[in-house]
Amino acid sequence: MKKLFIIKIGGNVIDETESYESFLRDFASIDAPRILIHGGGKIATKIGEQLGIQSKYINGRRITDEQTRDLVTMVYGGLINRKMVAQLQALSCNAIGVTGADGNLIRASRRPVKEVDFGFVGDVTPEGVNSALLIALLDQHVVPVFAPLTLADGEILNTNADTIASVLAIALSHHYDVRLIYCFDKKGVLRDVHDDRSVIAEINKRSYQQLLTDGVLADGILPKLENAFSAIDAGVQEILIGQAKDLLVNTREETEGTLIRKN
Amino acid sequence: MKKLFIIKIGGNVIDETESYESFLRDFASIDAPRILIHGGGKIATKIGEQLGIQSKYINGRRITDEQTRDLVTMVYGGLINRKMVAQLQALSCNAIGVTGADGNLIRASRRPVKEVDFGFVGDVTPEGVNSALLIALLDQHVVPVFAPLTLADGEILNTNADTIASVLAIALSHHYDVRLIYCFDKKGVLRDVHDDRSVIAEINKRSYQQLLTDGVLADGILPKLENAFSAIDAGVQEILIGQAKDLLVNTREETEGTLIRKN
Repeated sequence: MKKLFIIKIGGNVIDETESYESFLRDFASIDAPRILIHGGGKIATKIGEQLGIQSKYINGRRITDEQTRDLVTMVYGGLINRKMVAQLQALSCNAIGVTGADGNLIRASRRPVKEVDFGFVGDVTPEGVNSALLIALLDQHVVPVFAPLTLADGEILNTNADTIASVLAIALSHHYDVRLIYCFDKKGVLRDVHDDRSVIAEINKRSYQQLLTDGVLADGILPKLENAFSAIDAGVQEILIGQAKDLLVNTREETEGTLIRKN
Repeated sequence: MKKLFIIKIGGNVIDETESYESFLRDFASIDAPRILIHGGGKIATKIGEQLGIQSKYINGRRITDEQTRDLVTMVYGGLINRKMVAQLQALSCNAIGVTGADGNLIRASRRPVKEVDFGFVGDVTPEGVNSALLIALLDQHVVPVFAPLTLADGEILNTNADTIASVLAIALSHHYDVRLIYCFDKKGVLRDVHDDRSVIAEINKRSYQQLLTDGVLADGILPKLENAFSAIDAGVQEILIGQAKDLLVNTREETEGTLIRKN
């Protein structure tokens, strides 16, 4: 199967002009089919404040009301996504900026109300991914760039970018040899959270059990690893957890981050 | 050749919720390949005011400075375009929201500075259209929905929606039997500008000369018709000038608006 990189960057990368531009240059230079998923950024909060839109919380959980939904539609789906595409195009990377709504790329469902009504928030599954259109775009050497928005019942929904990356990776692992790369704030999974040089180069299901038994992993990384192994179990070939600035080396065999594989 | 409808709606249609929703229902129900190009709307001015961005004019000509460019990127490329796609998807029309930057669909050039520096404004030509990708999308039964934005040298540029519609029509007329439909405020080209029932059903190059000789056409329509005949000369098979509410009948042979043909 052909290699496909699915790469997720958070708002923290977008917020720092220098590291962001360097990331885009690296992303543009990858010589393989690839998909980018981006999160939000401080600019949404800033524009929201100027428009008098305040973030709402219930029991400490962030709520997406209609105003906030329109704000993220403008900022994530408009300003950030359209500018990212413009910057990538200027770097000769043939990007196309999409949300889950476009071409019905990811069918979502609105998160059901339980204790908390999260508002306009979408949940996604690998079954909702329109792989045929993504493959058609990739075959045309087009690079999809996803804003973290999806659609259900005619409503645009704020959607977790990590989850979008994960469901795209699972759905496309039937057609490609997928490496899903999460760019986060550390160099990788650390054996000692206080020592950046203690990156664990590779974890498989067996060594993961050993690490859990040894109790060396920081609490913060556990949910990320649990998610990663769910995606591995669902068919994703490789998941890489690392820093945005290490993107290029993390597309190779010898990585700077932590490579997660089944075996 | 297969039929293709290229349909342009202005901001005035978007601003009126009822006529807009009715337009989207009609557009969604067209059973043929189609492309939609939309203009702006009052919402951009409203959000601009809230953000303290003022429209700038030099010698009565509107200027797109950087702030205004970012505003239209958010509002045209984000809020309006993404919501339009969501509404069309809810009507089972498989829309994809794009700008000229996406997939390099329309290469533009920044308008050169002569007497006036228009700022971040793009000029487009039929040669800049990436027909191959548009055809690939149309072949996948995907419906491109263009926001009036293009790209040159890494900068997003505010671009006239009428012109985008026209260059798309010219470029795609080599591959499809194109009818370009401009939705404007009158039922069609009127023999008597004060009488809405005086729509001229069809104009060709010969009858256009006669109308000009007779001096019956209103001044306001002359530039539209001149543009239309330029597009016809460049290969567009048919151009229809009519009202948004007549969209469906204007996709048929017997139209309510004015059909412009070569012969």
